[in-house]
Amino acid sequence: MKPSSKKVAIVGASGYSGEELVRLLLSHPHAELTAVTSRQYAGQTLAQIFPKFAHHPRAKTLRFSEPKADLLAKQAEVVFLALPHGVAAEYAVPLMQAGCVVIDLSADFRLRNAAVYKEFYGHDHPAPELLGKAVYGLPEIYRDAIRKALLIASPGCYPTSVLLPLIPLLKAGLIQPGAIIADSLSGVSGAGRKAELDYLFVECNESARAYSIPKHRHLSEIEQELSLAAGAPVTIQFTPHLIPVNRGILTTLYLTPTKNFADAAGAAALGEKIARCYAKAYANEPFVRVLEGRALPDTKNVVGTNVIEIAWRLDPRTGRLIVMSAEDNLVKGASGQAVQSLNLICGFPETAGLT
Amino acid sequence: MKPSSKKVAIVGASGYSGEELVRLLLSHPHAELTAVTSRQYAGQTLAQIFPKFAHHPRAKTLRFSEPKADLLAKQAEVVFLALPHGVAAEYAVPLMQAGCVVIDLSADFRLRNAAVYKEFYGHDHPAPELLGKAVYGLPEIYRDAIRKALLIASPGCYPTSVLLPLIPLLKAGLIQPGAIIADSLSGVSGAGRKAELDYLFVECNESARAYSIPKHRHLSEIEQELSLAAGAPVTIQFTPHLIPVNRGILTTLYLTPTKNFADAAGAAALGEKIARCYAKAYANEPFVRVLEGRALPDTKNVVGTNVIEIAWRLDPRTGRLIVMSAEDNLVKGASGQAVQSLNLICGFPETAGLT
Amino acid sequence: MKPSSKKVAIVGASGYSGEELVRLLLSHPHAELTAVTSRQYAGQTLAQIFPKFAHHPRAKTLRFSEPKADLLAKQAEVVFLALPHGVAAEYAVPLMQAGCVVIDLSADFRLRNAAVYKEFYGHDHPAPELLGKAVYGLPEIYRDAIRKALLIASPGCYPTSVLLPLIPLLKAGLIQPGAIIADSLSGVSGAGRKAELDYLFVECNESARAYSIPKHRHLSEIEQELSLAAGAPVTIQFTPHLIPVNRGILTTLYLTPTKNFADAAGAAALGEKIARCYAKAYANEPFVRVLEGRALPDTKNVVGTNVIEIAWRLDPRTGRLIVMSAEDNLVKGASGQAVQSLNLICGFPETAGLT
Amino acid sequence: MKPSSKKVAIVGASGYSGEELVRLLLSHPHAELTAVTSRQYAGQTLAQIFPKFAHHPRAKTLRFSEPKADLLAKQAEVVFLALPHGVAAEYAVPLMQAGCVVIDLSADFRLRNAAVYKEFYGHDHPAPELLGKAVYGLPEIYRDAIRKALLIASPGCYPTSVLLPLIPLLKAGLIQPGAIIADSLSGVSGAGRKAELDYLFVECNESARAYSIPKHRHLSEIEQELSLAAGAPVTIQFTPHLIPVNRGILTTLYLTPTKNFADAAGAAALGEKIARCYAKAYANEPFVRVLEGRALPDTKNVVGTNVIEIAWRLDPRTGRLIVMSAEDNLVKGASGQAVQSLNLICGFPETAGLT
Repeated sequence: MKPSSKKVAIVGASGYSGEELVRLLLSHPHAELTAVTSRQYAGQTLAQIFPKFAHHPRAKTLRFSEPKADLLAKQAEVVFLALPHGVAAEYAVPLMQAGCVVIDLSADFRLRNAAVYKEFYGHDHPAPELLGKAVYGLPEIYRDAIRKALLIASPGCYPTSVLLPLIPLLKAGLIQPGAIIADSLSGVSGAGRKAELDYLFVECNESARAYSIPKHRHLSEIEQELSLAAGAPVTIQFTPHLIPVNRGILTTLYLTPTKNFADAAGAAALGEKIARCYAKAYANEPFVRVLEGRALPDTKNVVGTNVIEIAWRLDPRTGRLIVMSAEDNLVKGASGQAVQSLNLICGFPETAGLT
Repeated sequence: MKPSSKKVAIVGASGYSGEELVRLLLSHPHAELTAVTSRQYAGQTLAQIFPKFAHHPRAKTLRFSEPKADLLAKQAEVVFLALPHGVAAEYAVPLMQAGCVVIDLSADFRLRNAAVYKEFYGHDHPAPELLGKAVYGLPEIYRDAIRKALLIASPGCYPTSVLLPLIPLLKAGLIQPGAIIADSLSGVSGAGRKAELDYLFVECNESARAYSIPKHRHLSEIEQELSLAAGAPVTIQFTPHLIPVNRGILTTLYLTPTKNFADAAGAAALGEKIARCYAKAYANEPFVRVLEGRALPDTKNVVGTNVIEIAWRLDPRTGRLIVMSAEDNLVKGASGQAVQSLNLICGFPETAGLT
Repeated sequence: MKPSSKKVAIVGASGYSGEELVRLLLSHPHAELTAVTSRQYAGQTLAQIFPKFAHHPRAKTLRFSEPKADLLAKQAEVVFLALPHGVAAEYAVPLMQAGCVVIDLSADFRLRNAAVYKEFYGHDHPAPELLGKAVYGLPEIYRDAIRKALLIASPGCYPTSVLLPLIPLLKAGLIQPGAIIADSLSGVSGAGRKAELDYLFVECNESARAYSIPKHRHLSEIEQELSLAAGAPVTIQFTPHLIPVNRGILTTLYLTPTKNFADAAGAAALGEKIARCYAKAYANEPFVRVLEGRALPDTKNVVGTNVIEIAWRLDPRTGRLIVMSAEDNLVKGASGQAVQSLNLICGFPETAGLT
Repeated sequence: MKPSSKKVAIVGASGYSGEELVRLLLSHPHAELTAVTSRQYAGQTLAQIFPKFAHHPRAKTLRFSEPKADLLAKQAEVVFLALPHGVAAEYAVPLMQAGCVVIDLSADFRLRNAAVYKEFYGHDHPAPELLGKAVYGLPEIYRDAIRKALLIASPGCYPTSVLLPLIPLLKAGLIQPGAIIADSLSGVSGAGRKAELDYLFVECNESARAYSIPKHRHLSEIEQELSLAAGAPVTIQFTPHLIPVNRGILTTLYLTPTKNFADAAGAAALGEKIARCYAKAYANEPFVRVLEGRALPDTKNVVGTNVIEIAWRLDPRTGRLIVMSAEDNLVKGASGQAVQSLNLICGFPETAGLT
């Protein structure tokens, strides 16, 4: 066992988020991966199902097991849930009762309000009593609360790409909360490892299309967090698109500054405020990269990393502020961010296993 | 020679738009392709440079020539210019003087105002005296004028994807002209066949990125045409993105209706007006497909065709109207649309060679 | 109804080969598509399921139906079967009894010997009495027999790419029949429209892999036809690979000439014979393109067409002959070739609907 | 400075191999990257040119410089040359004279015979006196010699994918040296970061094609090393193909065993010998993964790693042995392998910076 390490387990380790957790945790300097579950692959080793991990000694011996909460509670101190929404709760409850810390990558505990959950997910929340205990696992915003949390609701991929660029601007009162438009492009891994015709190679390659508009489920957590930042209810426009890349989300945000600017001088003055706002929020953040000069975010610069790139432009012609972000949907948008929470909870360096 | 056909030539036939013109004109039932020019490939046959055309008998004998206006004027009645902006004018002037009809795919004659050209293209217009004679080659909007035109300024790929969904709404007064946002995704062929690092396979594959923001050159013609439709100056927000597909543009438009709607009933009433507006504008258009039911535009459904797909959704949560379009940037966004103009000018069926 | 046209139907019109048949037959000048079947989509129109065909008037009215042989026999004179192997036979028998001509795109009738079928497909042949009546639908080899056939066994995609380059060489005795190696790369549409994890975008993109080695099912028909050409039993090596393109097969053949050549002079002499052999076989074939000069086959030059490209090189260092071919697996490798057979059977021009 | 680390420099750090060296050396636990050269980018920081490295503190301060051997000799103890062939020699000579160890990723020092170099590369070797001093940097074969080397000729990407599967078989006398065929598929990064039309996204996407046949330059080093393994001159057939992936080489080898086998029993006996041969050669190699069971190599399982996957199949129908390998052309095929040599030379753990 690695020195001063925590025993961790992954429930639902055969999906794309689960597989990415496996990758990160096998190499984590302070985590020992003791259990991975998958109904489909129970009994087979990690190396058999994911040949790309076969060179990790642990991958040759660790076998997928059936997901059983009581057994997992004996095997691990921290359990990651990489399950579909609606299913995670049934593991979270017994695992927490048995004393495990739970880091949930599903949407089950992201909303504070069970009624909003029902509105967006179409069924009653399976464990509303836990909603008050969960901490939204966005470390750049909730770092202190995460350190003390027993249940982490790790954010969705789209929400991360929207929230990190917007929250500092809203908190500083630099943009109008009522005029936010988010336009996102996502790689196909965001749809999960599901055997559906829509995600076949031939259906996605040489294709670009919007989907789930105008009311995508992720709006619920996006608006909850934006409202908290703005101090008032926020409703936004959000359009996700599917593009033919494996990984990566590029989000373009159309914003209206609270202060009008009609010329270059006005733009320069406002630009200084925006730059200071982002510098104050993110200059010391290890995983947020605010681009300088003429550079614009590009998913290929962040794929495989836990970094989110952000850049912004003021348009004197329209009076708008355009902000763009790029992240890897499976890392900063899912598993990397969950490991960032693990590091905070366990007192490891926040970047451990993520660089 | 085909019965009752016109002799046509292509200047700049080795770029992607030029190649697509070759494809369409080789199979056109009423056009005889008599000359193709390319400095780079002069002396070689079409079949040698584009093996995919080698099964057309004409491709085995037709050789690229140096572009010479006087010679072209003897070879063809209609000349397509598929040249970079700023260069097309030097061929258009002598060709028109020699009696040819010119269909220009560059930006040179799209703007009515030479000052706007200079603002967006960075140099004086090379032939301002022709600006008044050019007809903007968007057949669904300017069909009658195109029939009589001697000089066609065929629209850009992004403008086509933005204008066709917007003009009917603006003309009907259904949307606010001052609150238009256009977010576009383009395939890499839109950048042209240029040997630049930015467009290498490795730089574009597994990448998504915005570029040329906030003031892309195509804004000039987009805003000119929207202003004409609205009857007042219109300034819009436009963000183009590059995604890893060969062909296709997907545009998402964020619009604010002139009439507020806050609930399902209001949305239904407004929705009827929008549906009627589009039906009136496009029900009989052979190349505009307004989608019904739950279908959304997808570039893979239009690639290789001259069709533009349009769909729209009202969002009662935000009060906005979302309109999407999909087209092939090289066909409806360039060469197919140019052939549509050819058909109108020559009195051929408008769909000749395009189905 | 089009003048002098045949009524045709497609059983299994929702797979990739079926969809491609729809595309070709909707535009065919002498075919009237009267029925398309699909259990999954029964009751819906072609336009609803395949929006890309929505601009064909027929696509708006023609609805998928349940596949019923007796009904189909009344609706069509020629019926295409685009079904999985083992299923086609149950439609072929009653359709033929009812007087229809059947063009089967499955493997069911490609083998003359039911024992070989069982060896490669793992079950008894469902209608061995029909094997003697079927004609292997490779028009360049069996044109006359196809003209008179009542049952066409249209060749597989890999077999077409291997057989057309090899048969002339074998018939001319120019290569050793016992030393043939075929290495093929296929686009993902070759796997069919199946909801399986292996063919998800994320599993195929940025991936290259061999599969089904060393005994792929297509070997059975390849070796049958090569043996007929050589006049003696032929066994070959065949390795298929999956690469991330939608369409296209590129096959590289490693061959040993019957006549040794050890230097440039020997290669030149042999090269003349090979060139003459291919010219004799294919100079007048509308869909075979033997490349000249330095050009090599490239799938992007044939995608969407019924053309197969062939090129060859002699290697004086090794004494081997390398032959390459490129085709669209869904057109010349499936549906285009089937339409070519239709044209021959009905006395239409062989290229009707295919250019 | 990291404890017990070596100062290293990269000449030609802006190409794809150079960029990959930057990635590996920035994170290497025992290497300090002190200089990176690029004529094109001199004066700019690593972070400016490669935003994806911007989160490494070193990338913000380290600037590209003009390549000057005398200066580099003062900055680094080990210098990597990631330059085009023919150019590396002019840096290698002065750097070695100044006492640096040189690890060259070009082809300049891979051949022992200057005449073979001239035959394949078309010009006289620029520094034939160094050919005797260079060690071919394939650690699995030349580990001891690499440890003592002052000049490493790091192997090409294709050669690595061909040599590692073949050398154990040849040394063990299990295959006929005169009947080797290697068929390779390569990602586009193998062509280098060159602004050429052939490597544009649109020219490579949805395309598969062979090139440089039948006498690719890499044949010279492949045959040199195979001849050494076989103890006699070996000439092979080699066909490289370009496929639309960023990274990865998949090689399929067609081999004839020295011992005939005509049935399952013979295959089983020979199979045991092959398995033992590979186990003896590679069971303890950290970067060679011989696959078991039904798994076949897939480039997506090795991309980003220094691992080469190998699998083999005996075909009783043909008597042949098929061996496949998969590697990342930029890692095990170039920069990772070069770092492996660095580790051996410096006495670091062989896997340092590579896991």
